[in-house]
Amino acid sequence: PVCQTGSPVIPRDFDSPRVFDGLTVQESRSVRDYLLKIKSLSLVPISKARPNNSYIYMIDLHMPLKDAVLRHLDVGYKQPERTAKVVLVRGDQTPPRVEEYLVGPLPNPSYQRKVTNPSYTTSTIPYAAKPGDSVDYKYLFKILEIASYHLYPVLYGSYRLSYHNCTKNVDCMEWWDIAPKGRGSDERKTWFWAFRDVEGFYLHPLGLEIQIDHISTDVADWKITKIVYNGQLFYDVEDLVNRYVSKGNAVYRMEYEPLGYKEHLYSSYTRRGKSEMPEPKQGPKLVEPDGRRFTVDGHHISYMHWDFNVRMRTSSGLVIYDIRFQNERIVYELSLQDAVVFYSGYGPAQGISNYYDTSWIMGAMNFELVPGVDCPETAVFLDVDHFVNANEPFTIRHAVCVFEDNGNLPLRRHFSSDFEGGYTYYAGLVDYNLVVRTIANIWNYDYIFDYIFHLNGAIETRVSATGYVQSTYALPREKKYGYPIYNNVVANLHQHLFHFKVDLDVNGMENSYSTLEISTEKVGVDWAKPKTKTQMIYNEKIMMDELEAGPGQQNNFDTPKYDVIINLSKTNKYDSRRAYRILNFGKSRFLLEDSDVTKAGRWAKYPISVTLYNDAEEMSTSIYAQNYPWEPVVDFEKFIQNNDSIYQRDIVAWVTMGVMHIPHTEDVPSTTTAGSQLRFFLLPFNYFTECPSVSSPNTVKITPRSGLSDVNVETYGTSFQSTCAQKEYGPTNFNGRTKT
Amino acid sequence: PVCQTGSPVIPRDFDSPRVFDGLTVQESRSVRDYLLKIKSLSLVPISKARPNNSYIYMIDLHMPLKDAVLRHLDVGYKQPERTAKVVLVRGDQTPPRVEEYLVGPLPNPSYQRKVTNPSYTTSTIPYAAKPGDSVDYKYLFKILEIASYHLYPVLYGSYRLSYHNCTKNVDCMEWWDIAPKGRGSDERKTWFWAFRDVEGFYLHPLGLEIQIDHISTDVADWKITKIVYNGQLFYDVEDLVNRYVSKGNAVYRMEYEPLGYKEHLYSSYTRRGKSEMPEPKQGPKLVEPDGRRFTVDGHHISYMHWDFNVRMRTSSGLVIYDIRFQNERIVYELSLQDAVVFYSGYGPAQGISNYYDTSWIMGAMNFELVPGVDCPETAVFLDVDHFVNANEPFTIRHAVCVFEDNGNLPLRRHFSSDFEGGYTYYAGLVDYNLVVRTIANIWNYDYIFDYIFHLNGAIETRVSATGYVQSTYALPREKKYGYPIYNNVVANLHQHLFHFKVDLDVNGMENSYSTLEISTEKVGVDWAKPKTKTQMIYNEKIMMDELEAGPGQQNNFDTPKYDVIINLSKTNKYDSRRAYRILNFGKSRFLLEDSDVTKAGRWAKYPISVTLYNDAEEMSTSIYAQNYPWEPVVDFEKFIQNNDSIYQRDIVAWVTMGVMHIPHTEDVPSTTTAGSQLRFFLLPFNYFTECPSVSSPNTVKITPRSGLSDVNVETYGTSFQSTCAQKEYGPTNFNGRTKT
Ligand SMILES: [Ca+2]
Ligand SMILES: [Ca+2]
Ligand SMILES: [Ca+2]
Ligand SMILES: [Ca+2]
Ligand SMILES: [Cu+2]
Ligand SMILES: [Cu+2]
Repeated sequence: PVCQTGSPVIPRDFDSPRVFDGLTVQESRSVRDYLLKIKSLSLVPISKARPNNSYIYMIDLHMPLKDAVLRHLDVGYKQPERTAKVVLVRGDQTPPRVEEYLVGPLPNPSYQRKVTNPSYTTSTIPYAAKPGDSVDYKYLFKILEIASYHLYPVLYGSYRLSYHNCTKNVDCMEWWDIAPKGRGSDERKTWFWAFRDVEGFYLHPLGLEIQIDHISTDVADWKITKIVYNGQLFYDVEDLVNRYVSKGNAVYRMEYEPLGYKEHLYSSYTRRGKSEMPEPKQGPKLVEPDGRRFTVDGHHISYMHWDFNVRMRTSSGLVIYDIRFQNERIVYELSLQDAVVFYSGYGPAQGISNYYDTSWIMGAMNFELVPGVDCPETAVFLDVDHFVNANEPFTIRHAVCVFEDNGNLPLRRHFSSDFEGGYTYYAGLVDYNLVVRTIANIWNYDYIFDYIFHLNGAIETRVSATGYVQSTYALPREKKYGYPIYNNVVANLHQHLFHFKVDLDVNGMENSYSTLEISTEKVGVDWAKPKTKTQMIYNEKIMMDELEAGPGQQNNFDTPKYDVIINLSKTNKYDSRRAYRILNFGKSRFLLEDSDVTKAGRWAKYPISVTLYNDAEEMSTSIYAQNYPWEPVVDFEKFIQNNDSIYQRDIVAWVTMGVMHIPHTEDVPSTTTAGSQLRFFLLPFNYFTECPSVSSPNTVKITPRSGLSDVNVETYGTSFQSTCAQKEYGPTNFNGRTKT
Repeated sequence: PVCQTGSPVIPRDFDSPRVFDGLTVQESRSVRDYLLKIKSLSLVPISKARPNNSYIYMIDLHMPLKDAVLRHLDVGYKQPERTAKVVLVRGDQTPPRVEEYLVGPLPNPSYQRKVTNPSYTTSTIPYAAKPGDSVDYKYLFKILEIASYHLYPVLYGSYRLSYHNCTKNVDCMEWWDIAPKGRGSDERKTWFWAFRDVEGFYLHPLGLEIQIDHISTDVADWKITKIVYNGQLFYDVEDLVNRYVSKGNAVYRMEYEPLGYKEHLYSSYTRRGKSEMPEPKQGPKLVEPDGRRFTVDGHHISYMHWDFNVRMRTSSGLVIYDIRFQNERIVYELSLQDAVVFYSGYGPAQGISNYYDTSWIMGAMNFELVPGVDCPETAVFLDVDHFVNANEPFTIRHAVCVFEDNGNLPLRRHFSSDFEGGYTYYAGLVDYNLVVRTIANIWNYDYIFDYIFHLNGAIETRVSATGYVQSTYALPREKKYGYPIYNNVVANLHQHLFHFKVDLDVNGMENSYSTLEISTEKVGVDWAKPKTKTQMIYNEKIMMDELEAGPGQQNNFDTPKYDVIINLSKTNKYDSRRAYRILNFGKSRFLLEDSDVTKAGRWAKYPISVTLYNDAEEMSTSIYAQNYPWEPVVDFEKFIQNNDSIYQRDIVAWVTMGVMHIPHTEDVPSTTTAGSQLRFFLLPFNYFTECPSVSSPNTVKITPRSGLSDVNVETYGTSFQSTCAQKEYGPTNFNGRTKT
């Protein structure tokens, strides 16, 4: 028989969105329609816009003030009005700029209000700071098409490829852009680099790169300013072509065999080599003999003692709101802020690459997940809606999956030996946990974000990196930054960094940040005078203000300590103050403080920092980081520099995880997750009277009975029977296309 | 239907043990019988021995020289003779001592040879260094029985408990010892402390502790030297009892209600509190629809491209030998060396507790695993044999489990967006992996050791800590070292440290240790002169000798680097030298270098150290560490201090993982694994031409077909069908008793 389904999955009620729910398609459409009618904004649909028009770039939920949300949830006030935050590109203004509006109330807007987030460093968001959008690309690619046409002798001569007039998967090439767009706020010059158009093209750089200056809103001014071919710099296409075709050999040509031409396609996932299984067998997978044990009600999820809400923020990705355990709120918000990658390199594109993924609208790039590969077949998949860089809202099917895992590990267990070959009792409980997963795919990389809820009150945040490494043509001066991963291809040293907002509310909002710092003491031994001994001791240090909490803790990687968010006025049964500990297993030393291009990611300095809660400081970054990193619109340092008191206030912890990545041949075809995972934990610390997992009827206790092989097994009514087969829900259920 | 079994499990052939196999019961019996017949040794069976007799303490496999093993395996020489290493306690010698013998050839011994391991710091192992054994306990407990009898007024008056004449689980108490046995090599004084005899007695300290001096081999000299009751020091039982019963109140009595008397038993695993599941449901579990995919042939295990052998070393636990991937040896030996816990504390027992678990014969305390809790029901369980502290060899059933896990995570995946709402392809592969698990239970703690073999050539070593924390009676001066976990019970700050031997042989034995050290450079930008930029760079540093490798790397926690074991004379296809990287996610700062009791664990200073291979340096510790830590018989520092060259030699890496543990209420009833796991990885680093997982037919590739919801799914013959149910193999299959 097929296993029963178990707990219900209730679809979202799009007619009555709740306070944490993302905008519905209907809501964002109503905002778009409302704004398009406002003459003074002179908005053009983005599909028809030119850079010197005004148009809607993005519409997303604007969260009500935390106070208002809590009055609604905790005191019973009515749900706050729903509001959208809209990003308008105002190419027809002088100077051209980006503007942000609040539009409400939804779903029948009656007002729009231009706003400046007080946490922004500027009241006018420069046009050059806006994310690259379909308007830019439309005109940039026109320039590339023409250039490619003229470059045909070079393309065909060097690579046997072309951009126009080619056969897909045979002899085509692609152009892709990198960021930022220049080396300072005064520039808007995008480098494009050429790749062979094959599966895993990221690993087929051609050593041909073009820079386009497009700082003007008049596309007539846009022009190619530099071309680099095989390490040689040219200023226009004609010059390169002329010198390339000339007999005088004025150009060092590339004439090697096309990459991946004679062998298998090294960048492909196609199975190859001697199989470890002559007869392919499927691997172990999960079955739920008693059915699903968690409930999904729209975007509200309940599992065991846990309760929380999910929302896909269009810019940065998943946000988890109002995480409760046994009905007590522990976290108001847990969310990814940004994922950045800072590269080293020589070549123009590789050497300038420094990515801020929230600016690439990473949230809208959490694409559909594949059952049986990305998530187990037992998972529940959730759809999410976005309105960005398009005329219409669109739906990404199955962008989130939720499943229960057993970890195949005990959460707790003990074998109580009798030291005579037997035992007095055995007891154990499996580490069942609920995983909420999204996978952000930003061009080459795929980041797997898991939020994991354990029975012991622990919340684990895990990032696993896969997808392709960024690679570049192996010019001689490139090779000092990375190892070759293929003939003439090198992948360079870089650092991934991830920033998370963790708004813990430990037994209320008045919390403090304390560290338990471990050192040694030499003391006398009362029981063996005059002997002395050296042993460890810990001292609690309570941070009074933001400078003490972030910068003050920055450079003590070497001091063992516990970081705890504590409520100084609430104690547990034994008079210890209730707290949650932040345990960051993913610390990564940030070396690039002196680099100007990392200024929009200065949060990276702090493995943990703590600030006073501020509704305006909604995120530690913005969608403007990527193209204006030198003068960031949101500068996390500013959150700290006003040095608010954080003593028994509503405070927010910010956690940075990161990893240095020196790519190697095993990153081909793509990076593997085993060994690349980063995690941080939120762990109860004197919060409960005892581990809350004691309530689980999945506990197993065994005691010996008199006969030599007899046991008493207590399972609290939990069966171990498994006579059903899980309904198949494999990769054929994938669709992969968004729905407009 | 029930799922098919899949690949075979072939029982050990005890008549033809292979080179890495542990001693068979027959072999160790033959050694015992041979030795008992040698008159000059005057051995007494341990069950009849007194401290002033000679007896066999332990018999275990003595590994042949690595050269001999490799000649056998790689060149085809015949299998080296099998030999046993025997630990004899020589209580009848002057001075009394411990001796080690080699006895062979097995299974028909014809010689015994007294040996001194050249790596030992002494040629005579002092008697006081021997592990506590059944001979000691027999006489120590006689003393405790008599003392308990006399202490009855105190026991009953303070706790309503007694040691004699009590009803099990109602009003009994227990005595347990801690270690080391004193504060210097000249002492052999064991502290015993009293606990209420209930489930989880570890959390019921009574505040009554007794010290027995037993340095003499004449038990008539053994005596109680100190008693501490409620923080007050006495020198004999009579004095305490007299003063306790006297009217003058010369003693501060304990008279509180018995712990755990009126409430539930807080230390128990018994389910309690509001259940999160009114109807108990079993959780998700693994099913193998196509059957098992790994082969077990005795203690040789094959999985996909992996091949290795396991042996349970009686002292320290699991050893994995000759790990090969695609038939190439990568690791000759991967094994736990020791697990130590260094405590802080005030009270006599707590304040002296500093444990070296290999000296407690941790290997023989990897007890039976429970299907469905400790390991999934799909696991294969292996039995192991020991001869230690007993007259007869004994078998621990199911001490090792082996199972395939899917991690519920992709190992690699990529979604290749077309940036127009669709995709060009999707490809992914699940992170299937094989787990080899043992759980060592040393009194209170249960350490779960997992060796995990991934498809990408990565080997993960993971330690998860559970079981009970050590707790102590909360004297006022105890409280600065820990938080209360119950009324009058405190659990103190401590550090767990684990040491592993990692004998990598990267493409042969001639290897070097290099670090890739990451720093920054400021360079000009050739494409944007005169602009400059700051970026990261890495520099390879090759360690020439042992002092450079261990101490030289000790204090740079702050320098990001890669640690790689590299073969400088072997390159991959792209001319990078083949290497494996050691990635240690479990580094823990060691603060106790100045403590004399940690001298037997000075390996703890080095997150990674590298030494020249030396057959004599078989282990970084010994079974003599615990009771002679001040002058350790094996001092790891000595391995390094002779400063051998490690440049293109057979080298061994040693990895330390650790964690600072400040217990809190959620450690009740026992520590949970979620958040307490430590891992290190061995990762291929330019070792293969590409990720070896490309050979897996479990890869899934999806490409869009023309219709909007149509996909091509390539699974290389792997099915996703699952119509069978896994055969139940739950906790009722547990036995829990060793077999003699
Ligand atoms: Ca502030
Ligand atoms: Ca807060
Ligand atoms: Ca070696
Ligand atoms: Ca040496
Ligand atoms: Cu990377
Ligand atoms: Cu611990």
